[in-house]
Amino acid sequence: MESLPKAVYKRAVRYTIMLRITVLGSGASVPSVERNLPSLCVRYGGLYVFDCGEGTQRQMMKYSVGYGSVKAIFITHLHLDHYLGMFGLISTLKLMKRAEELHVFGPEGIEQIQFPQADFLRVHPVKQDGKVYGENGFSVSAFRTKHSSKSFGYVFALPDKWRFNEKKAKGMGILGPLFTKIQKEGKVKIGKKTIKLEEVAQKVEGKRIVYTGDTMPSPATVKWAMGATVLFHEMSFSNEHEEEAKLTMHSTAGQAAEIARKAGVERLVGCHISPRYEDAAPLEKQAQAVFPKSEVAKDGTQILVTP
Amino acid sequence: MESLPKAVYKRAVRYTIMLRITVLGSGASVPSVERNLPSLCVRYGGLYVFDCGEGTQRQMMKYSVGYGSVKAIFITHLHLDHYLGMFGLISTLKLMKRAEELHVFGPEGIEQIQFPQADFLRVHPVKQDGKVYGENGFSVSAFRTKHSSKSFGYVFALPDKWRFNEKKAKGMGILGPLFTKIQKEGKVKIGKKTIKLEEVAQKVEGKRIVYTGDTMPSPATVKWAMGATVLFHEMSFSNEHEEEAKLTMHSTAGQAAEIARKAGVERLVGCHISPRYEDAAPLEKQAQAVFPKSEVAKDGTQILVTP
Repeated sequence: MESLPKAVYKRAVRYTIMLRITVLGSGASVPSVERNLPSLCVRYGGLYVFDCGEGTQRQMMKYSVGYGSVKAIFITHLHLDHYLGMFGLISTLKLMKRAEELHVFGPEGIEQIQFPQADFLRVHPVKQDGKVYGENGFSVSAFRTKHSSKSFGYVFALPDKWRFNEKKAKGMGILGPLFTKIQKEGKVKIGKKTIKLEEVAQKVEGKRIVYTGDTMPSPATVKWAMGATVLFHEMSFSNEHEEEAKLTMHSTAGQAAEIARKAGVERLVGCHISPRYEDAAPLEKQAQAVFPKSEVAKDGTQILVTP
Repeated sequence: MESLPKAVYKRAVRYTIMLRITVLGSGASVPSVERNLPSLCVRYGGLYVFDCGEGTQRQMMKYSVGYGSVKAIFITHLHLDHYLGMFGLISTLKLMKRAEELHVFGPEGIEQIQFPQADFLRVHPVKQDGKVYGENGFSVSAFRTKHSSKSFGYVFALPDKWRFNEKKAKGMGILGPLFTKIQKEGKVKIGKKTIKLEEVAQKVEGKRIVYTGDTMPSPATVKWAMGATVLFHEMSFSNEHEEEAKLTMHSTAGQAAEIARKAGVERLVGCHISPRYEDAAPLEKQAQAVFPKSEVAKDGTQILVTP
């Protein structure tokens, strides 16, 4: 790549590090012909999977996400429809003679599940809010959600960046390696003068993808999704079934949209759609009435995010 | 139904008791976009399932087989790709508040699998060749096959019937209830004369469906499939991979066809196709070269059998 003209190289880098999200299963509890059980994956160098319902490995093949390069799986809660697919996926990776570690995160209790015996498997129970995983310049954090089983949502976050005002920075004497130094240390001293990073650069927040898993409306989601690029919020029910949503600790379309509005996210994607809704258009309309940039996921829905 | 004219009623009965077989998964070990993991079901009043790989419940929905009326599941061997789908199916039946018993058969060890807890579940380890299940005028028998794990094939058999030579029978004095009596007892006494069933009726063998599951070529299959209506024999490999088939205790297309030829079955359907064969036409040709009435199953292949 280094022998390419600089502009071409820059563009290539830009596109290869684009973040590609694929909804592998947009359904809930019981699959339907149209919607498989919950799963979503993020391709960013490696593949990162959130929930892994029965049949996920086949969905991965169908939507060409490159399942062999899965690095980590994040399970929101220990209901079978959210993790059964791991058994088949692990078996397949064993047949492929996988050597690289596969990290699995989920609420406490996940370490007691008898997954197929595999040397590469590393199971990490998640106990509290906070960062659980980080690699290649991104992090995944967990946050408690409100469901009938102990449950966590996850935030896939790219780091904040600084956009330099190059003219100003150079004018103040910041040249060559000083650009790296000021980013690392937050300031540099040139002669007797200390220049703070904020004086010559503007902070650009890293993109963030939030996936709730099953939850009723929760202030924690608003907090952790604040300003997120995409919020995948469960939307099990239409507004008409609010009572049932409350009883089963799920959310309606309107409630999910209200969370998105409060968090000021850029985009809401509803998932975990109950199989009772053969047509999810009414749910989409109900969400849009509260938060216009709402949509209901389908199996195979892809979203590209430029870091 | 009883108020229908007799001829219409007879026809109705004939069609409603037609036996419908659906291949739910024609693949092996790892699913592909085209082929799901092994499963096949027989609709004959209730639904009877043979093997139940990951994703089977969704295949049942896709091919409209009426999964809610499943009565029994027969697992050939305890490799995960042949039974993982039971976990999801049982969970779904629980959500549907199933009360009726669901019988599950499989090699010893199946009783130790921690399926989701369900009051309706009855797990029966199969220990030897012979009848394991019978209901509504059919039986299911198990027979040992040859695979790397203890394995059984299954025979779904309708009972033999007697086709009367009515003119002859009536001429010999068999009238009214004597028809039932001679079928039940094999003979009747009229005056001093004993008439044997064979004298007035011809035996018509009941239709038989044989499903091998994973196996290398075995004389037991020939014996149990002798004259069968349809033989579903595994056909993991093409003839070129005979050595690999032997090592992994599977069969090639040619070997499966040779078994069909020796057993003199009416029809061979190859299943358990390795995902390496994107195009299974060569396997079909190899089988047909040995046994012309051969075909390779696809997901969704349906076969109707008139009892």
